[in-house]
Amino acid sequence: MIKAKIIGATGYGGVGAIEILSNHPLVELVSISATQDIGKHINDLYPHLNGICELEIDDPDNDVECDVLFLATPDGVGMGYADKYYNNNIKIIDYSGDFRFNTEDLYNEYSRRIGKNIAHKSSHLLKESVYGVAELHRNNISKSSIVGNAGCFAVSSILAIAPALKENLIDYNSIIFDAKTGISGAGKKATDAYHYPHRYEQMNAYKIATHQHVMEIENEISKIIKKNIAVTFTAQVLPIVRGIMTTVYARLNENVDYEKLFNAYKQFYQNDSFIDLYGMADNVGSRHVRGSNKCALWINVDTRTNMMVIVSHIDNLMKGQASNAIQNMNVMFGFDEGLGLRFIPSYP
Amino acid sequence: MIKAKIIGATGYGGVGAIEILSNHPLVELVSISATQDIGKHINDLYPHLNGICELEIDDPDNDVECDVLFLATPDGVGMGYADKYYNNNIKIIDYSGDFRFNTEDLYNEYSRRIGKNIAHKSSHLLKESVYGVAELHRNNISKSSIVGNAGCFAVSSILAIAPALKENLIDYNSIIFDAKTGISGAGKKATDAYHYPHRYEQMNAYKIATHQHVMEIENEISKIIKKNIAVTFTAQVLPIVRGIMTTVYARLNENVDYEKLFNAYKQFYQNDSFIDLYGMADNVGSRHVRGSNKCALWINVDTRTNMMVIVSHIDNLMKGQASNAIQNMNVMFGFDEGLGLRFIPSYP
Amino acid sequence: MIKAKIIGATGYGGVGAIEILSNHPLVELVSISATQDIGKHINDLYPHLNGICELEIDDPDNDVECDVLFLATPDGVGMGYADKYYNNNIKIIDYSGDFRFNTEDLYNEYSRRIGKNIAHKSSHLLKESVYGVAELHRNNISKSSIVGNAGCFAVSSILAIAPALKENLIDYNSIIFDAKTGISGAGKKATDAYHYPHRYEQMNAYKIATHQHVMEIENEISKIIKKNIAVTFTAQVLPIVRGIMTTVYARLNENVDYEKLFNAYKQFYQNDSFIDLYGMADNVGSRHVRGSNKCALWINVDTRTNMMVIVSHIDNLMKGQASNAIQNMNVMFGFDEGLGLRFIPSYP
Amino acid sequence: MIKAKIIGATGYGGVGAIEILSNHPLVELVSISATQDIGKHINDLYPHLNGICELEIDDPDNDVECDVLFLATPDGVGMGYADKYYNNNIKIIDYSGDFRFNTEDLYNEYSRRIGKNIAHKSSHLLKESVYGVAELHRNNISKSSIVGNAGCFAVSSILAIAPALKENLIDYNSIIFDAKTGISGAGKKATDAYHYPHRYEQMNAYKIATHQHVMEIENEISKIIKKNIAVTFTAQVLPIVRGIMTTVYARLNENVDYEKLFNAYKQFYQNDSFIDLYGMADNVGSRHVRGSNKCALWINVDTRTNMMVIVSHIDNLMKGQASNAIQNMNVMFGFDEGLGLRFIPSYP
Repeated sequence: MIKAKIIGATGYGGVGAIEILSNHPLVELVSISATQDIGKHINDLYPHLNGICELEIDDPDNDVECDVLFLATPDGVGMGYADKYYNNNIKIIDYSGDFRFNTEDLYNEYSRRIGKNIAHKSSHLLKESVYGVAELHRNNISKSSIVGNAGCFAVSSILAIAPALKENLIDYNSIIFDAKTGISGAGKKATDAYHYPHRYEQMNAYKIATHQHVMEIENEISKIIKKNIAVTFTAQVLPIVRGIMTTVYARLNENVDYEKLFNAYKQFYQNDSFIDLYGMADNVGSRHVRGSNKCALWINVDTRTNMMVIVSHIDNLMKGQASNAIQNMNVMFGFDEGLGLRFIPSYP
Repeated sequence: MIKAKIIGATGYGGVGAIEILSNHPLVELVSISATQDIGKHINDLYPHLNGICELEIDDPDNDVECDVLFLATPDGVGMGYADKYYNNNIKIIDYSGDFRFNTEDLYNEYSRRIGKNIAHKSSHLLKESVYGVAELHRNNISKSSIVGNAGCFAVSSILAIAPALKENLIDYNSIIFDAKTGISGAGKKATDAYHYPHRYEQMNAYKIATHQHVMEIENEISKIIKKNIAVTFTAQVLPIVRGIMTTVYARLNENVDYEKLFNAYKQFYQNDSFIDLYGMADNVGSRHVRGSNKCALWINVDTRTNMMVIVSHIDNLMKGQASNAIQNMNVMFGFDEGLGLRFIPSYP
Repeated sequence: MIKAKIIGATGYGGVGAIEILSNHPLVELVSISATQDIGKHINDLYPHLNGICELEIDDPDNDVECDVLFLATPDGVGMGYADKYYNNNIKIIDYSGDFRFNTEDLYNEYSRRIGKNIAHKSSHLLKESVYGVAELHRNNISKSSIVGNAGCFAVSSILAIAPALKENLIDYNSIIFDAKTGISGAGKKATDAYHYPHRYEQMNAYKIATHQHVMEIENEISKIIKKNIAVTFTAQVLPIVRGIMTTVYARLNENVDYEKLFNAYKQFYQNDSFIDLYGMADNVGSRHVRGSNKCALWINVDTRTNMMVIVSHIDNLMKGQASNAIQNMNVMFGFDEGLGLRFIPSYP
Repeated sequence: MIKAKIIGATGYGGVGAIEILSNHPLVELVSISATQDIGKHINDLYPHLNGICELEIDDPDNDVECDVLFLATPDGVGMGYADKYYNNNIKIIDYSGDFRFNTEDLYNEYSRRIGKNIAHKSSHLLKESVYGVAELHRNNISKSSIVGNAGCFAVSSILAIAPALKENLIDYNSIIFDAKTGISGAGKKATDAYHYPHRYEQMNAYKIATHQHVMEIENEISKIIKKNIAVTFTAQVLPIVRGIMTTVYARLNENVDYEKLFNAYKQFYQNDSFIDLYGMADNVGSRHVRGSNKCALWINVDTRTNMMVIVSHIDNLMKGQASNAIQNMNVMFGFDEGLGLRFIPSYP
């Protein structure tokens, strides 16, 4: 039984962690904290937690004995807490971009591209941190004390392209990610863009050619082939609450056909219980994964244009955030990787 | 004042035509017909038409004096009616693929690709018919007696790519259409895929690499550069009722920048009142066009990957079907092209 | 041709008036004003108005020659403008509760019940103002220079009960209004309650037994029988954007049956083209009226419990607000009452 | 460990039972059967069950050793299976109206009112069966071998009114249930009324004064005061998938105030862990219960009209169907009543 603390517990990502950890057989949730609403009970803010978790919201700076810290906080916040916990041998999982890059240079470029331009406050930890996608970095995560939990668009994109890159099946200069996200990805804060009357029957692209997750994707997939890859990425938002569907396009290399492609994915993910592979005879939608830690990859080839077309589905709040964070925790502590995470996708 | 008849009046496309023609200042709607529900009043099926149009549904084979016939019918049906009306000097606008191709060879290939494999019953009319996108074929439509109204995905795609092709700004082998449609595109028939509890919170691709509109798009855009173009096209359906958002990717040719690209579109559509152009500083969504005959084209360039990224929005039931058909009618009869079609997009 | 000015033009109610007046054949919209966003073009805020209305937002205090003023403003605001315009012989239509009551005492009680407790700034105009439901007060509105446009819940409720009360068919102490509203009724301001991820799949009652529209309803229906009536009213909000469905319950008096009840409604509304009556054999939903100025009244009797059950449908932004205001304007100026208001309900 | 069989496993109610039983610590699901799709795997029909339950769909008539049978079947079906299983000492939980009444006379009247007019095929079991709401009949259910699982509207209504009736706090002739349901209540079969484009932005009442659940409600609540009660009940359907909100109105007896009323509910449900009580200071919506076995009762009094206004929320597929059935099973087998049923309501 380990003890867990959450900082940033009152956003969707924090609440997701509360829900999962409250039912996790090897975790005791000892502290939920946030900079606002201190002293209130979490179930007063989120009444669906009545009877599940009724902890008081604590000041993040209060000292609590714990074994793992979830920093469910925005860019630039977790880096301010990490050092102290790290030095106390508390394992750290950060939800933001703060620990997704391993060098100060990379972080600086990221910070510039998200328009923040801040200096990293715990830059000495960057080389210790591991990128939080267990399917790619399981071994390193298991030995690490600090993990940068992956961004939701990035999880969806990277899992969809990694095997094709690794096996050299595609032209790495031709990669396009056309990503569609549900609204919960924007968080709990009410804004004009997500006001119900404005959003229903509304779909739109945003931050075209400038989205902050692009660098994270490029950085991770470049590692696979040890070459710098630039990708075209379009973020689009739709009147769905949970779900990311990313359609991935890339030109197939010569002599690569559907069978070869499919087998590469099968091989790559043979030990990954949360990756579901589907082929050209299938029909796959967001309801295959909604509410679960799954990623569904639907492998297709357009023989007329010699393009790979892979459709990747995740629940952005689960495999794209909270349940992926707990999966990382399970790996870090040597637990069964799927412990407490085998949720049935919600239907209807 | 001209007289109009509709065959296939009880589907969404037929009802759309009823609504528009009922308020059109130069049209009298004299007959609405369908093979089912003959004898019922249209407002008994569609109570929102109470007081607007309360005509009885007629047998399509009944003779009615008219000047224009709308064939709001599926593939293979309109071809059975066309000859008789054409010979009676009645202008024809067909909603299906029946008159979108100018040769029997092309139609046969289309028919095979949509899995019908039928012989065209009025093949002698194919060379007379004009593809029904006024922005591209205004002059020919104005002289024609038979028009093949464009498919919804095709309108959205073709309008988005035509200027770039015409001005030779892109690599025509690199074109990708990532298309997202609302559900009304599948028509009024209740099916499992569009049963409300199944569809809410559900998005999915379908007919990957095999969609029937691909050939129509390729055929039309190949005419522009007089070379055969093969495109990658992905249809996706979302829990929205009205709207198509097509994100178009193509590699820019050398020395083509955003300004040159944007100006090409401005030039191409300078006389087209239903095309709204937007640039990189804008934010564009489906609510810009919903319920109207507009097509919004949002022009972007990703300089990192040298890709054109154009987001095209239409209302699939309007510019993608019924109002586009009336626009064609206006052109065929020499009316003001926008007569009866200047709808305010619905908001909120 | 009359000239119209709108104050409070940037909320949903103001935008609704802009849309209708822009197409009204006897009105020129000369000024749209608001206290925020002065100097911006309305279509920059609401891009669906591109090409429809591109006026600059004016300062409300700027003098503009006009014949009618729409005060699309919240409680307590219109009363500050009314006097000046009234004295200049400009007809006034106010959207709030400011001019829905004819005495200072009534207004004071209303003000207290909505938690404002403000003194009326133009109380001398209260006795001049007419309650803005043309179906009940057509004659007085036609002679009036100031109208208090009815609240959306109130329109829906009053139209549903008036004939039964007038003909003494029900026990006036037994009236219950169970009202369900779409979200647009709460306006354009983004709030937690109407943040898309919170609101989808969420329905709830609110302000039980204390809603501000209750007094307005009671005051109006008490006039009909010249006795004070207290009603039970429950407001509920659902994940719909446009629409109010109010289910009205009242105990039938002795010897009142369905036929007698239905005939009373038929008689009462015989000259009202925007009231659609439906009986027990019908099926009526919000799509009968959505986007239109209609009120659909579905008359039912439960013979087992001797209760009248009437289901009333309106579009809250239309008959519940903007189009009802223009209907009042038409009556005030002696125009055809339905001029510019015969919208087809939107479907699908 | 007990063995469970489901007949009618492929509807929403059957799938709900599959999900719950697959994770129930004391149940082994040994057979899922249906009259259609025999031989297919359940996860081919419902891919969200991949890895959760991949059983083949069996013929209902095949003999399988089991301890409990769930008849997730429509009216008139379960009665054909019950006798055989009952005689084999297999406990039975039926989802339909087949076993909700204890006499043939009552069943005949019910059958007539739902328009079926069938004779009961296992009428000798009616006197053995218990109405399946554990909060009211826990003791009898624990001793019973056959339970008629309650209807969704009925659960929602009965739980909301029982304490007030039992303590004689209301005029039993004044009871009104204004019930609003999500669409999943109509089941998985695609129909015009629930076709997505028709249903979005659509709310409507149906079967006014004639709904089949009325008799079930009246029968149950009449038992409480041992007098025949007739109620007014209105079913309404909204564009929500899961959830019933029933607003209950009744005139308070003399000297009954809010405190007395609230305490009656508190007392009545003191041992019921799935009933959450809320008072006038609270705000309660469907998200309090969605996806869970909870019933939220929000107790209010309108002192101006002396009416009780109680808003009752359940998830129609859970406390209104599948999880309520498992709760009954837990009671029948002497398990902890909440075993396998403590779901966190889904949010956002």
